[in-house]
Amino acid sequence: MESEFELIAKYFTRAPRHAVLGVGDDAALIAVSLGHELAASTDMLVEGTHFFPDAGPESLGHKALAVNLSDLAAMGATPRWAMLALSLPTAEADWIRDFAAGFFALAGKHDVDLIGGDTTRGPRNICVQVMGEVKQGRALRRDGAKPGDDVWISGHLGAAAAAVAHRKGEIVLSAEMLRHCTERLDRPLPRVALGGRLIGLANSAIDVSDGLIGDLGHICERSRVGAEIRLAAVPCSAELLPLRHDAAVIRAILSGGDDYELCFTADPAQGNEIERLAACLDLALTRIGTITEGTAVTVRDDRGQPMTLRDKGFEHFR
Amino acid sequence: MESEFELIAKYFTRAPRHAVLGVGDDAALIAVSLGHELAASTDMLVEGTHFFPDAGPESLGHKALAVNLSDLAAMGATPRWAMLALSLPTAEADWIRDFAAGFFALAGKHDVDLIGGDTTRGPRNICVQVMGEVKQGRALRRDGAKPGDDVWISGHLGAAAAAVAHRKGEIVLSAEMLRHCTERLDRPLPRVALGGRLIGLANSAIDVSDGLIGDLGHICERSRVGAEIRLAAVPCSAELLPLRHDAAVIRAILSGGDDYELCFTADPAQGNEIERLAACLDLALTRIGTITEGTAVTVRDDRGQPMTLRDKGFEHFR
Repeated sequence: MESEFELIAKYFTRAPRHAVLGVGDDAALIAVSLGHELAASTDMLVEGTHFFPDAGPESLGHKALAVNLSDLAAMGATPRWAMLALSLPTAEADWIRDFAAGFFALAGKHDVDLIGGDTTRGPRNICVQVMGEVKQGRALRRDGAKPGDDVWISGHLGAAAAAVAHRKGEIVLSAEMLRHCTERLDRPLPRVALGGRLIGLANSAIDVSDGLIGDLGHICERSRVGAEIRLAAVPCSAELLPLRHDAAVIRAILSGGDDYELCFTADPAQGNEIERLAACLDLALTRIGTITEGTAVTVRDDRGQPMTLRDKGFEHFR
Repeated sequence: MESEFELIAKYFTRAPRHAVLGVGDDAALIAVSLGHELAASTDMLVEGTHFFPDAGPESLGHKALAVNLSDLAAMGATPRWAMLALSLPTAEADWIRDFAAGFFALAGKHDVDLIGGDTTRGPRNICVQVMGEVKQGRALRRDGAKPGDDVWISGHLGAAAAAVAHRKGEIVLSAEMLRHCTERLDRPLPRVALGGRLIGLANSAIDVSDGLIGDLGHICERSRVGAEIRLAAVPCSAELLPLRHDAAVIRAILSGGDDYELCFTADPAQGNEIERLAACLDLALTRIGTITEGTAVTVRDDRGQPMTLRDKGFEHFR
């Protein structure tokens, strides 16, 4: 059997394009471009909590990086570098090869260097840390929303959570719907290009990882504002349209996690520019509500009545 | 019970001193000082692999940061920022409070900001990522060792591995020796000040996390050189002196992990300067051998005979 060092060297050591020094020393060395700040984020994925034990390694490699790139996208940052810490029950060469294939396919698409990491034995756990660059003082933050801002969402919501709900027996999807929804769950697309283009247009942004209402709530909390959302305006994944009025699907749309779309707020005067951006990126960008005075996130149903939600988001300890 | 978000906010959110934006957004933002590179490293600690299930949370908080700061020390970088991803079986407020106390006590000592992280449910796993600054082009690397260099080690080796060997029943330490060795295992001191002062003096450096011979082997591999070490010259922890000739203790000294001393190589002409540095830092710095042509790390016993080692280092998958 190949040793830890040999496996790492074989599958995870690739010459960096943007780093002074990559994998293989005590630390990596990078030079941040002049006039830029470094944006850094980390996400840990745990078997049984974030993915099913039968999740394919190639998808996991993709997703572990994707959820981190999504955080950089929400800041408007350009991703550049990643580090990967991996705990595995055994040194499974096939698993590592396929995981690396998924990871590097997405990394290559966004020109991200893997510059360091750690591999160890233990329950399966994937911790990725990403770094990117954003022009000084220009990052999208959660604390810039203003009363009167439109609330926007990219893409469509609910598919990833619907796949989980199906596996838990809470809803029944057709084989075709399940395939679509599982693809969204396993291979989320971080909205990197959108994030970068929102600088100067959006007043605040967040990525929807824990559910729309909970994540919009984070914007409201940091910005000291409230929000009103129209349920009918929230774009639902096409695969879920037939079930759109099912309570479990409404919950998936409003508070399901794992969508990795961007929720952002912008002055209504930016509306036309944002619609042009949607056309340019070939990505749905939809106005779903308004930032208000106050502190609460209210969702109104088709008759304009405020809805009661069973849970606001997805907290891993609950 | 307090929720994940409340626990994080309560124990891990502290105003950063050096960051543009700390905990609480999708990513942290930092500005790297002009003329400096960013050094970044990550280490994952897993229950049962890196620490015993009964390890105290305050010590774990210290150690999780310490082993990462040790990596920056080995580059000669000044630590500035850290991120913490934490997987816990349950949201244990007391555990988190004590872990945070240990983490922040060491962070404060080195003026390190916690700028981001992730908390989730799962088997206990601690992944810390650290970032620091080092003057452009001046970092200590593994690939600069030259034939004729002296090989140096800071401090004393073997105590941490001896504590583990005692718990595994491989050696028997007195209560007093065990207390000393456990302290070294649980609360390693990263050699941050030494690392910074070695810039301009050392040709290469590494921290001894996996064992002296294995880690010196990494320097040799990256520098395409060999090394000869004199066993009698390797400084053994004072607590272990009575057992110095025990085979298990020799193994702890040469290939035990978790010492977190710095092993570095330097031109013999720097010897006096390095000895002055030792006096200035009140830290033992000891010449233990020489860099050679070739590729192997050879250890010679008291009679000058090459020794055979049962294992070169500590690989987590073996």
